[in-house]
Amino acid sequence: MLSDTIAAVSTALGEGGIAIIRVSGPQAITQVTPLFRSRISLADAESHTVHYGHIISPVDGEKMEEVLVTVMKGPRSFTTEDVVEISAHGGIISVRRVMDLLLQQEIRLAEPGEFTKRAFLGGRIDLSQAEAVIDLIRSKSDRAFSVALKQVSGSLSEQIHILRHSLIEMLAHIEVNIDYPEHDVESVTAEFIKDKSTEVMEGINKLLKTSNEGKILREGITTAIIGRPNVGKSSLLNALARDNKAIVTDIPGTTRDVIEEYVTINNIPLKLLDTAGIRDTMDVVEKIGVERSRAAVVDADLILLVLNSNDELHADELALMEQFKGRQCICLMNKMDLPSKVDKETLLSFFEESSIVPMSILEEKGLDKLEEAISTLFFGGKLESGDLTYVSNVRHIALLKKAYRSLMDAYEAAELHVPIDLIQIDVRLAWEQLGEIIGDTAADSLLDQIFSQFCLGK
Amino acid sequence: MLSDTIAAVSTALGEGGIAIIRVSGPQAITQVTPLFRSRISLADAESHTVHYGHIISPVDGEKMEEVLVTVMKGPRSFTTEDVVEISAHGGIISVRRVMDLLLQQEIRLAEPGEFTKRAFLGGRIDLSQAEAVIDLIRSKSDRAFSVALKQVSGSLSEQIHILRHSLIEMLAHIEVNIDYPEHDVESVTAEFIKDKSTEVMEGINKLLKTSNEGKILREGITTAIIGRPNVGKSSLLNALARDNKAIVTDIPGTTRDVIEEYVTINNIPLKLLDTAGIRDTMDVVEKIGVERSRAAVVDADLILLVLNSNDELHADELALMEQFKGRQCICLMNKMDLPSKVDKETLLSFFEESSIVPMSILEEKGLDKLEEAISTLFFGGKLESGDLTYVSNVRHIALLKKAYRSLMDAYEAAELHVPIDLIQIDVRLAWEQLGEIIGDTAADSLLDQIFSQFCLGK
Repeated sequence: MLSDTIAAVSTALGEGGIAIIRVSGPQAITQVTPLFRSRISLADAESHTVHYGHIISPVDGEKMEEVLVTVMKGPRSFTTEDVVEISAHGGIISVRRVMDLLLQQEIRLAEPGEFTKRAFLGGRIDLSQAEAVIDLIRSKSDRAFSVALKQVSGSLSEQIHILRHSLIEMLAHIEVNIDYPEHDVESVTAEFIKDKSTEVMEGINKLLKTSNEGKILREGITTAIIGRPNVGKSSLLNALARDNKAIVTDIPGTTRDVIEEYVTINNIPLKLLDTAGIRDTMDVVEKIGVERSRAAVVDADLILLVLNSNDELHADELALMEQFKGRQCICLMNKMDLPSKVDKETLLSFFEESSIVPMSILEEKGLDKLEEAISTLFFGGKLESGDLTYVSNVRHIALLKKAYRSLMDAYEAAELHVPIDLIQIDVRLAWEQLGEIIGDTAADSLLDQIFSQFCLGK
Repeated sequence: MLSDTIAAVSTALGEGGIAIIRVSGPQAITQVTPLFRSRISLADAESHTVHYGHIISPVDGEKMEEVLVTVMKGPRSFTTEDVVEISAHGGIISVRRVMDLLLQQEIRLAEPGEFTKRAFLGGRIDLSQAEAVIDLIRSKSDRAFSVALKQVSGSLSEQIHILRHSLIEMLAHIEVNIDYPEHDVESVTAEFIKDKSTEVMEGINKLLKTSNEGKILREGITTAIIGRPNVGKSSLLNALARDNKAIVTDIPGTTRDVIEEYVTINNIPLKLLDTAGIRDTMDVVEKIGVERSRAAVVDADLILLVLNSNDELHADELALMEQFKGRQCICLMNKMDLPSKVDKETLLSFFEESSIVPMSILEEKGLDKLEEAISTLFFGGKLESGDLTYVSNVRHIALLKKAYRSLMDAYEAAELHVPIDLIQIDVRLAWEQLGEIIGDTAADSLLDQIFSQFCLGK
C-alpha cells in the first residue's frame, strides 16, 4: 500500500519561537531532499537524526528559511511511514513559505488527524489508542490527561482484547459443537454459553461503571452556582477563576474561553456554566421566571447553593432547597468565621452531612472540603484510586452497551435452548461490536468521522 | 561562564498536534536525563539525535507524557549550549506537566528572548542578527521575511564590519601620528581624515537610504482609503481582504486581527487603518469635522482616493485633492469599463500620471497597476532590486545617524585643524556607535531591553 505524501503544520498557530511542519509518506525523504540544503543530503541522513540547514527554492536555490530538519524512517515513526519534521521560525510567513514549497512537490496538505490515521492504518496503534491522542491534546485537567495517556498506551485495548479472547473461546466451542455435534451434549454447551456470556457481561459492566467518572474527567462536571444576592457567589467564582488562572499563568496564550469555562478544584474539573449563564443563575431567586437560568440549572450535573451562614435561612433559600431536593447539590455555608445563624436541623433535612460545606470564600478556606464533597458525590470518595482505565468516549460506551445486549440475547437464547447456530450469531455480533472499539472491524466512513475531529497536523 | 539551565515552551500556545519545550544550559542534558525513560539514557545520547520515550516523575516513575526528545550538544546548537528539545502533545495540560517537572529540577523558566540572547552571548550571532530573529517571526510579508532572513545570516553585520574596518584604519593612522608626530605632516593627516570620514559617511548614507523602504517592509505602508460614498471604497477593502484571506487560508488559526490590519498587494504590505477608522474615513467628505477620521488620514503614509470615473468630479473630491496635495496620494479611477467623465486635465494638476490608476474594483482589474503606482511612490519603482540589505530597525537607524554625526564632527574638526587627539575622540565614538548595532559595545541594560521584546521560548 504505497500512499501519497502529506504535510501540515503540527504546532498551534500564532507567534511562537518554533513551528513544526510535519511531512509523512513513503516518498517523504526523497521529496524534501531537493528543498533542503545542508552539510549532507537529506537522502543520506540516518534515521532519528537532526540537521541544520536552509529550505531553498528548488528553482533558483534562494534560501527561503533557516531550519532544523529531523528524519525518522518508518516503521519507527509516528505514522509508521518515513517522516520528515521541519522546525522553522514560528510565524505566519515562515510557515507559509515552507508549506508552499512542499505543496509544489506533489505533496498534499494533510487532512485533520491524517497523521494519526496513518499510525492506525500502519498498525502502530489501534483505534481506541488513536482516539485517545486527541483526548490528550484536548484534556482540560491533569486527571483527564492521565486517563488519556493510559489509553494511548493501550490500557483499554488490553481490556477489550481479554473480553474478545473469551468470546473467541465461546465461538470455537460453538463451532466444534456445530461441526461435530456428536462430541458434546447440547445442554452442556448451553451452560457453557451462559457461564461465558455472564463472565464477559460482567467484564463489560465493570468498564461501563467507569464511564460516568470517565465522562466527568473528560468533560468536567457541569456546575451551576446559585444563591441569594450578596452571599458570596461572585467571590466563589473569582476564587475558582483565580486558582485556575494561577495554573495557566505559566502558559501565556491560553484563550480566555478555556479560563472562563473550565476550572479545577484540585483535581476535579468543573465546567462552569458560561459566565453569562451563571450571572443569570445567580439571581435565580429573583429571576426565577427567566427561562435561560432555569434551563442552565436543570442541565447541571452539580448545583452549588451558596448560603451566608451568618444569616438565618431565607424563604427563597428554602424554596431552592425544596426545588433541588434529590439533585446532586452541595450547600456552601459561606462566612464560616462568623457565628452561624442557620438552623442545622433544617439543612440536614435537605442535605447529607457530607454535602454541607463550611467555607470562607474570601479567605479561601474550605476549598479542600468542597473538593471532598464533590469527590464523595461523584466518585464515591475514591478519587485517588490508582486504576486509571476509564471508558470516557461516547462511541466506546455505546459499543460496550451494544455488545452487552448481544450477549444478553445469547444468554437468553441459551436458556430457551435455541439452536446454537442461532446463538452463534449473537456472540459473533458482540465480538464485532467490541472489535469496533479498537478499530478491528471498523468501516471507512467511521474512520473518516473519527479522524475529522482531530486538529490539523496531528 | 557556567550559566543556569532555562526552559520554556517554544511553540505558539493553543491546541496543536505538537508542542516543543526547549531546555538550554551546560547542565541541560544531565538535568533532563532522570525525567526521561527510553531505550537508552539521555546522558548517552549522541548529539543531534532523536529519542522516543516517556517523561516520567522522578519520584515514583509514573509516566507523565509520551514524547520525542532531541539532544543537541553545544556549541552546535541554537544557544551554543547543550540543548534538549522535548516534543510533547500540543495541549495545555501536556505542556504544563512537562514544564512543572523541569522547573522542579533546578531549571528555571526562560525569560522572553533568553535563548536568542544566549546565542548572542555565546558568540554564534551578533546583536543585529539576534534582532532579525524576532523580525522573522513577526514579519507580515514575504519580502519583510526575506530581508530579516538575510539579516539573520549576517548581511547587515558584514556592512557594519566594513565600515568599522575603515574607522580602525583611521584610528591606527591617527595613533601613529600622535605617538610619532615626526613621521608625518599634520596637514596630510587632516586630508586623510577628511577623505576617510567622507568614505565612511557615504557608506552610512547608503545604508540609511534603505531605511525608509526597510521600515515599510517591516511595518507596512499605513494606508487610508477615502472618497465619496458609493464610489467603491468598501469593494476595494473587500477585494484587498479577499486576496489576503486567500493567503492565510492555507494556515488555519491565524488571528483575525492580522487579517484585518495587514493586506498585501502582491509583495507590498499595506497596514490598513483599522476598519472602524477606515469606515469613518470613508465618509470623510461628510464627516470632515470628525476629529478621529482627520487624525487617521493625517497619520497615513499613503492615501488612496477612490473616484467613480463614470461621474464628473464633485466639489467634495476637488476639496480632498486640494487638501492632500503634496501627500503620497494615489487616485483610483474606479469603473474603468464605463466611459470616463472625469476631466483628465484637472486630475493631472493634482497627480503625477503614474499615480492615476484606472481600475475595475468589482472585476478586480487594475490591482497590478495599483501595485506599480505604490512601488513608484515608495520604492522609486525599483521594488524588484535584488539587494535585500535594508536597515529597518529604529535602533540601528538612530545609531547610524549618530555615527554619521560623529564623523561629520571629525571632518569639520580636521578642516579647522583641530589637534588630532581631539579628532580621535569623534572617530572612536563613531566606531563605538556602529559597534553597538552588532552588540560589540552594547550595555547590559540595552540587551535586556532588546531581548525582552521577544516572545517566550525563543
